[in-house]
Amino acid sequence: VIEEIEVAPPQANEVRIKIVSTALCHSDLYCLLKVVEKEFFPVVLGHEAAGIVESVGPGVTEFQPGDKVIPLYLPQCGECRFCKSPKTNQCDVIWTRMGSKEMALEKSRLTCNGLKLRQFMGISTFSEYTVAHQMAVAKIDPDAPLDKVCLLGCGVCTGYGAAVNTAKVEPGSTCAVFGLGAVGLAAVMGCEAAGAKRIIVVDINPDKFEKAREFGATDFVNPKDHNKPISQVLMEMTGGGVDYSLECVGDVECMRSALESCVKGWGVSVIVGLTDMQDVTTRPLQLTSGRTWTGCLFGGFKSKDAVPKMVKDYLEKKLKLDEFISHTMTMDEINDAIDLMKQGKWYIQPQLT
Amino acid sequence: VIEEIEVAPPQANEVRIKIVSTALCHSDLYCLLKVVEKEFFPVVLGHEAAGIVESVGPGVTEFQPGDKVIPLYLPQCGECRFCKSPKTNQCDVIWTRMGSKEMALEKSRLTCNGLKLRQFMGISTFSEYTVAHQMAVAKIDPDAPLDKVCLLGCGVCTGYGAAVNTAKVEPGSTCAVFGLGAVGLAAVMGCEAAGAKRIIVVDINPDKFEKAREFGATDFVNPKDHNKPISQVLMEMTGGGVDYSLECVGDVECMRSALESCVKGWGVSVIVGLTDMQDVTTRPLQLTSGRTWTGCLFGGFKSKDAVPKMVKDYLEKKLKLDEFISHTMTMDEINDAIDLMKQGKWYIQPQLT
Repeated sequence: VIEEIEVAPPQANEVRIKIVSTALCHSDLYCLLKVVEKEFFPVVLGHEAAGIVESVGPGVTEFQPGDKVIPLYLPQCGECRFCKSPKTNQCDVIWTRMGSKEMALEKSRLTCNGLKLRQFMGISTFSEYTVAHQMAVAKIDPDAPLDKVCLLGCGVCTGYGAAVNTAKVEPGSTCAVFGLGAVGLAAVMGCEAAGAKRIIVVDINPDKFEKAREFGATDFVNPKDHNKPISQVLMEMTGGGVDYSLECVGDVECMRSALESCVKGWGVSVIVGLTDMQDVTTRPLQLTSGRTWTGCLFGGFKSKDAVPKMVKDYLEKKLKLDEFISHTMTMDEINDAIDLMKQGKWYIQPQLT
Repeated sequence: VIEEIEVAPPQANEVRIKIVSTALCHSDLYCLLKVVEKEFFPVVLGHEAAGIVESVGPGVTEFQPGDKVIPLYLPQCGECRFCKSPKTNQCDVIWTRMGSKEMALEKSRLTCNGLKLRQFMGISTFSEYTVAHQMAVAKIDPDAPLDKVCLLGCGVCTGYGAAVNTAKVEPGSTCAVFGLGAVGLAAVMGCEAAGAKRIIVVDINPDKFEKAREFGATDFVNPKDHNKPISQVLMEMTGGGVDYSLECVGDVECMRSALESCVKGWGVSVIVGLTDMQDVTTRPLQLTSGRTWTGCLFGGFKSKDAVPKMVKDYLEKKLKLDEFISHTMTMDEINDAIDLMKQGKWYIQPQLT
């Protein structure tokens, strides 16, 4: 049942956005299926979208009605020490928006039948309208097709940036990407853009390999074809391990495999997939032998600065987006979209009609 | 009982060294007390020493009898892809020398009553003489006092380099050093040399704090004084975590604490302590929130290149060494030295007399 959501007018420094297109991301599913705290609900999910400014609150000068925008689950306040550092994109404000307990209910502008609804990561895009603080909105090129660039609101930036910003993949290197959802495909695209010579993709669904090849993958590994640890398979394929690995699954065993697939001395493994239900583990010698384990959110991109540039790159055909979209559906098919995603049909793009 | 060890003459590309001074390192204890594989023994321990070349084998032109040298447990062959990369110091040869199974018994030049003895990490310095491959020997300044510079064979380079080479501590930063053995003190010295503004040391033995202050420590934390996780204590002391942490204990719980004491966004935690008996664990979000977990051996120094320079720095008084030595003993007191180290009396320097 799709309920009518009421969206309050924007308050000071806020923007009310008509959502035109929104994609479905695994993090929506993660929260829907795995978050157990009751106080997380009721919530309006969705965080990867594009829309048009409908109205602005007092103090907003950067936006005006009619502007095309992408809401940002990872804001960029520009004022905190994290925004001011060139080393990170993780604006301090995000931590008040992540997880259920910290998510500020009082700041939500959404209600349903009089009941206040939580705004997922400060935005909530599975709604005809939403209200976001201006630090969490990026103005984009008026020529941008919203049904494509919505993917830059999360998945494509997340995977692509993990390769270029966080792993800092070097030309001529060997990379491994674990998981071929949209984030994984975007990571492959990032590795290729950075000049990787060899890009090994790992997924238990070999149907995804052909698409990965379009994005630049050169080698394809299905763990089901091997009866030894996948890190050992990759070690043997590469004569000692990959230079960079990117975990785009959100599974702690995959995270370990990705790290342990790296070459000693300088291998870098980036955790891109989202999960925080269990500990991730390895042997200390994996790190003392010179590997580096790190991770990122939103691909390390400072969101408000980077998203308009990524849109421009897409318009200039430097970046693929259309190729990510597997299904286009209407918003009232959202539950079917969720079912498709659970089956591993990777990128779903419900459109509000 | 100290047995007579027979040391064969050097073969091709080998150097026979008269050991003048050797220090005792926790890694010797780790192997003595924690390595369970029977095939590791009999072994001659010791890997942090200085001596004088006694004779050289065919093909050795770089050394001649009388040269002062430091044997290198981490060799620098100069030929492997690790030696050729500026990113690491971990010469491929070390992996044939670490651990019991890989340690090449047939290459040992040491015997006792006709029984072949393993050479610990390819050197074995608890012996009047030893034989090492020339890739594992550094020629040092003839003016160097061997009873001091022996410490550059492991502990001091390991801790100091972890701060300056691996963590790459920046001026004005806040650092935490876990564990105040010689490696930890050297890490404090490295943080100070790199310009850290604040250096917090963590040890359960407060007797070590005064010495740490001499090396540059500014804040002192005894976990026994707190009834909450030490990462939380450090978070509160620093308003969000340290920029760099260095684990110099070799304990998987300390490794986790050290990582989780780092500030999100850019915190870097370096595992310096040696252990590999258990998994190290954390929550994935500790990494996806932008922390970096890595480690090093021998402080990331390319051994043969760096050790002579470190000796020079000591002679020019840019580097402390004398201050590390707590006890000077003779070789036949080695078992007493081991007992002292077990009690946490930190740097023991047995001298061969």
